[in-house]
Amino acid sequence: MTPTITGFERSPDGGKGLARDTRVRWALEEVGQPYEVRLVSFAQMKAPEHLAIHPFGQIPTYEEGPLRLFETGSIVFHLAEQHAGLLPGDRDARARAITWMFAALNTVEPPILELMTARIFERDKPWSEERLPLVKDRVRATLDKLSVHLGAADWLDGAFSAGDLLMVSVLLRLRMSGILDEYENLAAYVARGEARPAYVRAFAAQFAVNAPSIS
Amino acid sequence: MTPTITGFERSPDGGKGLARDTRVRWALEEVGQPYEVRLVSFAQMKAPEHLAIHPFGQIPTYEEGPLRLFETGSIVFHLAEQHAGLLPGDRDARARAITWMFAALNTVEPPILELMTARIFERDKPWSEERLPLVKDRVRATLDKLSVHLGAADWLDGAFSAGDLLMVSVLLRLRMSGILDEYENLAAYVARGEARPAYVRAFAAQFAVNAPSIS
Repeated sequence: MTPTITGFERSPDGGKGLARDTRVRWALEEVGQPYEVRLVSFAQMKAPEHLAIHPFGQIPTYEEGPLRLFETGSIVFHLAEQHAGLLPGDRDARARAITWMFAALNTVEPPILELMTARIFERDKPWSEERLPLVKDRVRATLDKLSVHLGAADWLDGAFSAGDLLMVSVLLRLRMSGILDEYENLAAYVARGEARPAYVRAFAAQFAVNAPSIS
Repeated sequence: MTPTITGFERSPDGGKGLARDTRVRWALEEVGQPYEVRLVSFAQMKAPEHLAIHPFGQIPTYEEGPLRLFETGSIVFHLAEQHAGLLPGDRDARARAITWMFAALNTVEPPILELMTARIFERDKPWSEERLPLVKDRVRATLDKLSVHLGAADWLDGAFSAGDLLMVSVLLRLRMSGILDEYENLAAYVARGEARPAYVRAFAAQFAVNAPSIS
């Protein structure tokens, strides 16, 4: 049964791959699972049909027969449980990979989300310029520790896993800020993720939808 | 094998149950698993011995023989996988409960963390008073949708699950702000969580450690 995911009709990032459907496309490509995409407009995201699948009115969602999921972390985990390629088989190694999924989404992403909010939604506020360095330093406080943990390793804990997929996706949001490039090993880690054939295919698929048309 | 978790030697919240070890204690109580607690000081949390278990230097951690985990979501999920009581057996219902775990930690908690940062770490900043209403409104934008989804139901999706355990725990952080009480059904939902015998035991256990001494 081919699952259907949703994505933005036109992503606000103009095809940079930062919309969260890219994370799900990447996971689907890693496990070799074909998928359909239903594009939704901002108006459709707030309509009852979509809210019935995603109570918070966001993308992506995941439909597989009667099963309807939202939350990128949950969709990636579901794919990792149903198919080989994203979680190790060993019980303890699997639990550690899942730990990194949660670390990406609940420890590393929140200060990055706060930085995006400061840069986008509070850009015109009178406090913006003075406050931004504080927000950036909170991101750095987290990345300092992540960088120490990663060290010279290729991935966070042994082989590439769903934990790396989410961590790389979260860190990609920082590239525009320049902060990622302050950490040589983290920048190389993200580049390793982007070089994976599954990521290349996922990025191209979202780019085909979201890139600004030339005409 | 009795697992060992870590908690603050003295929680900054003075025993209100908002430190994240309470979430893990609650999960352990729900599944009927005895546990040991190792209390760590702020200095110990930054020491190499602790960073080897928790790269971000936080609590809680979870040790079970050779397995060492961090991230509350991951620890709760590990307990839910190993013991009955926190996830439904049906494949699709299980995937939906896991979805609510991620929704609690990656959709609902980030704006609440931002509010805590604004109230605690930016309280003395010149923009604090003018900015706080914006931050509160971002929390409300999320709770509006959560409240609609919950409606008159007892729990987020059928029976109580690890998704409810994490969502109630996240919402508890809002009580002091007064925002939770703006949503009658969410306030009742949190109260239902707090009334569970497993929560009562978990709260009492952390209170015994963290409450200010009278002497």
